[in-house]
Amino acid sequence: MSRIHVPIELRWSDLDAYGHVNNARMLTLLEEARVRVFWRDPDSAQEAPLAVIDASDATSTRTVIARQECEYLVPIPHLRAPLDVQLWLAKIGGASIEIGYEVFSAPSVQPPVLYTRAATTIVLVDAESMRPRRITDAEREAWAPYLGEPVAFGARR
Amino acid sequence: MSRIHVPIELRWSDLDAYGHVNNARMLTLLEEARVRVFWRDPDSAQEAPLAVIDASDATSTRTVIARQECEYLVPIPHLRAPLDVQLWLAKIGGASIEIGYEVFSAPSVQPPVLYTRAATTIVLVDAESMRPRRITDAEREAWAPYLGEPVAFGARR
Amino acid sequence: MSRIHVPIELRWSDLDAYGHVNNARMLTLLEEARVRVFWRDPDSAQEAPLAVIDASDATSTRTVIARQECEYLVPIPHLRAPLDVQLWLAKIGGASIEIGYEVFSAPSVQPPVLYTRAATTIVLVDAESMRPRRITDAEREAWAPYLGEPVAFGARR
Amino acid sequence: MSRIHVPIELRWSDLDAYGHVNNARMLTLLEEARVRVFWRDPDSAQEAPLAVIDASDATSTRTVIARQECEYLVPIPHLRAPLDVQLWLAKIGGASIEIGYEVFSAPSVQPPVLYTRAATTIVLVDAESMRPRRITDAEREAWAPYLGEPVAFGARR
Repeated sequence: MSRIHVPIELRWSDLDAYGHVNNARMLTLLEEARVRVFWRDPDSAQEAPLAVIDASDATSTRTVIARQECEYLVPIPHLRAPLDVQLWLAKIGGASIEIGYEVFSAPSVQPPVLYTRAATTIVLVDAESMRPRRITDAEREAWAPYLGEPVAFGARR
Repeated sequence: MSRIHVPIELRWSDLDAYGHVNNARMLTLLEEARVRVFWRDPDSAQEAPLAVIDASDATSTRTVIARQECEYLVPIPHLRAPLDVQLWLAKIGGASIEIGYEVFSAPSVQPPVLYTRAATTIVLVDAESMRPRRITDAEREAWAPYLGEPVAFGARR
Repeated sequence: MSRIHVPIELRWSDLDAYGHVNNARMLTLLEEARVRVFWRDPDSAQEAPLAVIDASDATSTRTVIARQECEYLVPIPHLRAPLDVQLWLAKIGGASIEIGYEVFSAPSVQPPVLYTRAATTIVLVDAESMRPRRITDAEREAWAPYLGEPVAFGARR
Repeated sequence: MSRIHVPIELRWSDLDAYGHVNNARMLTLLEEARVRVFWRDPDSAQEAPLAVIDASDATSTRTVIARQECEYLVPIPHLRAPLDVQLWLAKIGGASIEIGYEVFSAPSVQPPVLYTRAATTIVLVDAESMRPRRITDAEREAWAPYLGEPVAFGARR
């Protein structure tokens, strides 16, 4: 199974008054990783491997976040080197997918620190009817190489 | 079982480019509800019923968020009337608690809309050793009236 | 001259890692004050005194922020009592207005603390042509009672 | 005169419900540019040219933002290529400096778009007494090559 690695830069403003990356802000960082991986970039010839959702096309599909789960393992301080957000498909359902994430320190940090595990359930919705629509064969094929195991949340063990 | 009702005002800036309250921002709204319920207000004679954690006391206990889960049921538009964040203790463990939430429209809206279900696991940590510390009898007693059932997440049914 | 008083609640998340309300977030608080004062509330019979801009009407006027200036006089800690954002019209031009602000501590705090002075220049734009449009007589009349002096920025004295 | 060029990546979450980078968020982007230019990076051998403020040294100097001014010339859409934040010293005073900024589109965009002009006045404060302290000769010398003209705000012309 392949994981997508998305380098995500922190901002100083991601810290809260405790001096660590805020727990809600972590979901913003995961959102940014999804945007860069899943959305087609109209200005780029080079396609991201999972960029099969065309955000600019307002007439067909919308994506709706149905559920998120996040496990905070180690507090994240202000870091200059981008986080290594690793992302895969934890599940491909009939009209929804589950993204799995493990958020690590930058590759230059040895040994790597695993900061966060998370999962997002996304429903594909027909933009006209606003009802869930089935995942197409083209989408299923594009995503198959990144289909991996469920997120290994520790708290449930 | 009693629930605590915390009115939380939206801001226009809570909306994202899709025109609804952003999924990450929802965790900020839940954080704000916790702050108002759990933290002692040094300027108020009137105690919040669960305000047994003294945020101003840097020498004893810190709270660390270990895990969050959130189910987004209905998109939230820009609303002037505060959300009715309902909150209870879904679990009291040895050194941790789980907060349960259901986020409703304002009481003036009939019938009420259930927007979001969520849960937060919080670990109590000794500020000196930074290791989990046991929940005290005083805390357990203060929280007992608000101990309720686990959050009824639909996606797991 | 009359000022509009808008109570604006802080959130704990408005603080940055220095433990005070972040300088950029202050502009979000001023934005929220404008939204509550200037935008018509479709669900309320009671009109805000300056609510002559109908945010729901996408076919006529848009407002564009052209310029902002902000003077930070005293750092703002985490406060439970809402800030008293005082707001008036510092200038009514041909196609633009300047809002003046002074941000004070809650009325219950004596003596009051003046935290921030600010000004925002807003241009009224025709939504179809996206070009500035002249302020109407009805708008000028509604705003006249709140027309006051320029913001007394200290740094320019 | 030399300007410092700081590439600052946008996030999708920087957009507000109007679909453009929010006016308050722009100050967060400028803050991030300052952090990367002015703060020493403890993990880097390579010094930023203006990194004479040691953020890790809690015992000597703090910087306090006294004033900001921002002119919004062109709305900023969601962009994948980082903004080119150009930054210089618009003024070196006795105990304060003024940073000037011009925020452009990425260098790959031709012709370049000038989105925003801004200025920030920063006071150097002794961390112990919390009173302004004089700029040292070492600081003045390090900053001199980046001393340029005042920001050319158009609204004042």
